[in-house]
Amino acid sequence: MLAPLELDRLRVVLVSSRNPLNIGAAARAMSNFGFSRLRVVNPYEKAFRTARSAVGAAELLASAEEYECVADAVADCTLVVGTTAVRHRELQHPLRRLEYGGRLIRKHMTSGPAALLFGSERYGLSKDDLSYCHWLIRIPTREEHISMNLGQAVAVSLYELIRNSRAAGAADRQELATAGDMARITPLLVDLLSTSSYLLPQRADDTEQRIRRMLRRLKLSARDVEAWLGILRHVQWRLRTGKKRD
Amino acid sequence: MLAPLELDRLRVVLVSSRNPLNIGAAARAMSNFGFSRLRVVNPYEKAFRTARSAVGAAELLASAEEYECVADAVADCTLVVGTTAVRHRELQHPLRRLEYGGRLIRKHMTSGPAALLFGSERYGLSKDDLSYCHWLIRIPTREEHISMNLGQAVAVSLYELIRNSRAAGAADRQELATAGDMARITPLLVDLLSTSSYLLPQRADDTEQRIRRMLRRLKLSARDVEAWLGILRHVQWRLRTGKKRD
Repeated sequence: MLAPLELDRLRVVLVSSRNPLNIGAAARAMSNFGFSRLRVVNPYEKAFRTARSAVGAAELLASAEEYECVADAVADCTLVVGTTAVRHRELQHPLRRLEYGGRLIRKHMTSGPAALLFGSERYGLSKDDLSYCHWLIRIPTREEHISMNLGQAVAVSLYELIRNSRAAGAADRQELATAGDMARITPLLVDLLSTSSYLLPQRADDTEQRIRRMLRRLKLSARDVEAWLGILRHVQWRLRTGKKRD
Repeated sequence: MLAPLELDRLRVVLVSSRNPLNIGAAARAMSNFGFSRLRVVNPYEKAFRTARSAVGAAELLASAEEYECVADAVADCTLVVGTTAVRHRELQHPLRRLEYGGRLIRKHMTSGPAALLFGSERYGLSKDDLSYCHWLIRIPTREEHISMNLGQAVAVSLYELIRNSRAAGAADRQELATAGDMARITPLLVDLLSTSSYLLPQRADDTEQRIRRMLRRLKLSARDVEAWLGILRHVQWRLRTGKKRD
């Protein structure tokens, strides 16, 4: 997990972007994932700051820095990584899959500033742009359709940087009923099933054990325990009295 | 890594999407990452199939299946997962971070069909939509700006499903010079440095070892070996003869 100071070390550099909506979408993804330093080199439309797609990221877009060339845009960075969809072209640079390259960028960001470059929608990064890069990453798209939308490519790349491979399954999980809760529910259900003759005296033990196992597999949510108890009590009461509640 | 048959088990279900461009963007990301089964429930605009943003995914968009309700759209799935940006609302479902939930979906896809639901741009999934879900995932956006663009959310979610955490650093890496290559380069450089009196006879051993270590750390690319040998030979020749080549 990167700390805010570390997130601040990444410069997202959009080179010669043609569509202001894509610049806006890049800004939105940056904001979603906690990055703030957007740099724009020679955008085709100077009006990019008003992009409607920058929902929630207007401020970030307004503070984007504009440069005339890649050299200036990456001058303060100690690592410069380009993105490319190309695979077979004679690349002059090491090319890494995002999963692995992202790890290296993250590592670098713990100590120094890094730039991540995205080229124009139509042509990608030029040979000259690439000459400023230490190495390249590619998003693992399939061979038959490698080229991603710019805003989506930025979102996926930044997600890789902030994703937490140790994200615990339990972190956001709804709280499950405790064994104590289950111990309150089980006898009620067993009683109910006896009352209803589902559990027959001659085979009661086997069936009861099966019921207990089924309950244990239920993964009941803690919040629902009282409601289920209520239901069981109600049905039991109905079975016992043979009456409908008014 | 998921096999093509497994990728084919995922249904991406867009519920009440308002903007055809977002449906197109979702289709593009699906195609980029190798998924093909798009389902659309009650889109606001019936003309979604002509979305311009579906670059390279027109066919996928044309074959999208339309449904009138979520129940029908997920009827053949044995796992239904909803996406949500919401965290604090009273959720009736377990909520998992994408990194972890993605792992569970991937696992499910090795055996049975799964649906991944995305709600409308404005409101997300409704309570009724959610009632068809076994559990929910959230993309780990930051608290202050949780809501992602729909097309970007689809791209990030699908990337998580296809990403290969074992992607070797070496897989796409440029081939490095072999130890044999380095053994050809090293004596040339050592000779050159002797000729140029950088290596002084009285301290030659220490310095030579330092040079060898420096070379080993270089990570020279295999393709560049001959060029470097040429440069060293040239400089050596120049030092020895004291002449410029014509």
